Amino acid sequence: MNPSPSTLKIAAVLFPGFELLDVFGPLELFGLLQEKVAITMVAERAGPVRSSQGPVCVAEAALGAIAGFDLLLVPGGRGTRPEVDNPTLLGLLRARAEEAKFVASVCTGSALLAKSGVLDDRSATTNKRAFDWVTLHGPKVRWIRRARWVEDGRFFTSSGVSAGMDMTLGLIAKLFGRETSLEIAHRAEYTWHEDKNHDPFAAGPAESAKG
Amino acid sequence: MNPSPSTLKIAAVLFPGFELLDVFGPLELFGLLQEKVAITMVAERAGPVRSSQGPVCVAEAALGAIAGFDLLLVPGGRGTRPEVDNPTLLGLLRARAEEAKFVASVCTGSALLAKSGVLDDRSATTNKRAFDWVTLHGPKVRWIRRARWVEDGRFFTSSGVSAGMDMTLGLIAKLFGRETSLEIAHRAEYTWHEDKNHDPFAAGPAESAKG
Repeated sequence: MNPSPSTLKIAAVLFPGFELLDVFGPLELFGLLQEKVAITMVAERAGPVRSSQGPVCVAEAALGAIAGFDLLLVPGGRGTRPEVDNPTLLGLLRARAEEAKFVASVCTGSALLAKSGVLDDRSATTNKRAFDWVTLHGPKVRWIRRARWVEDGRFFTSSGVSAGMDMTLGLIAKLFGRETSLEIAHRAEYTWHEDKNHDPFAAGPAESAKG
Repeated sequence: MNPSPSTLKIAAVLFPGFELLDVFGPLELFGLLQEKVAITMVAERAGPVRSSQGPVCVAEAALGAIAGFDLLLVPGGRGTRPEVDNPTLLGLLRARAEEAKFVASVCTGSALLAKSGVLDDRSATTNKRAFDWVTLHGPKVRWIRRARWVEDGRFFTSSGVSAGMDMTLGLIAKLFGRETSLEIAHRAEYTWHEDKNHDPFAAGPAESAKG
């Protein structure tokens, strides 16, 4: 692909045990922007990566070999548990996050960003079922316990799994206008939870989840 | 994977130009059933398959080489346009659909099932934006114009893109009970549109303005 200079270049991060919808919910909605975006899946090393649910997807580039991306998308999933102790991945995420115009995480993906240090002194959120585990990895982050998603400058962090789709529509609204988000949601037959502060899942059962 | 006899064995079909969320919305929700399911991505030939949005995923088995699956999941996407004229794929889909305990399609995936003949004399639905094109491929199907999803025996067909997630929760409710679907939806922080007959997207903007 040879996108035009105005194309939004998205790098979606994979790691073993990533959560399927954390990646493909946002990529579906971004993808509906068609020629306005170019999507590349990336990982610590290029090649096939198995998701938490079993299906295998392909990282077409290594995180250390990409440059000039506008948006870095970091999913959650069971794989965040080991990866939060993987200094190679965290260093690559930090470097790419420092370069990107926007950085977005879904669910426990914010644990990886927090541990890498790029969320220090910023507001962020995560999956409420994993709140205690995630926040442990970002003592300098201002964690928001009740939010569908949180925006702080160029950093967008969402709550669990499907909240990533609502955050994505919020990011599309910021970049392309609210009308575009409403049109994309309609095309996907998706009911957008547009209020980022309304979080019907924040007060769920207090148990830890794999998310 | 060596699932127990009671495991729900799911074969998710890929073809070039498949729609990401049509596959991964349902697989996310099924995946949250954990040891109750085993997911395999399949295609006409095993190997990497590029989605409509660009990302590449891996079919781990060929459609002609699998047996004993409980659920065949058929996505839509731009790729349905050429595949509806691919007799090899249609023949494989027909054979696997005849064997499977349940068959589910999302969005324009029902065009492939219809053309293969397995939906003849059954009720089904599809993406309303592609309604005229899809229904052309199934003159003997009872097409339902307004439905989030349609159940007819062992066949489940959904409306566009994210409707596949609501249909999946309907299928999980049928197989494992409604409480399980509500629990899965909560884990995914997803607001389930539980009424399969409520279709806020069936009417275009002009029609919905008329109420």
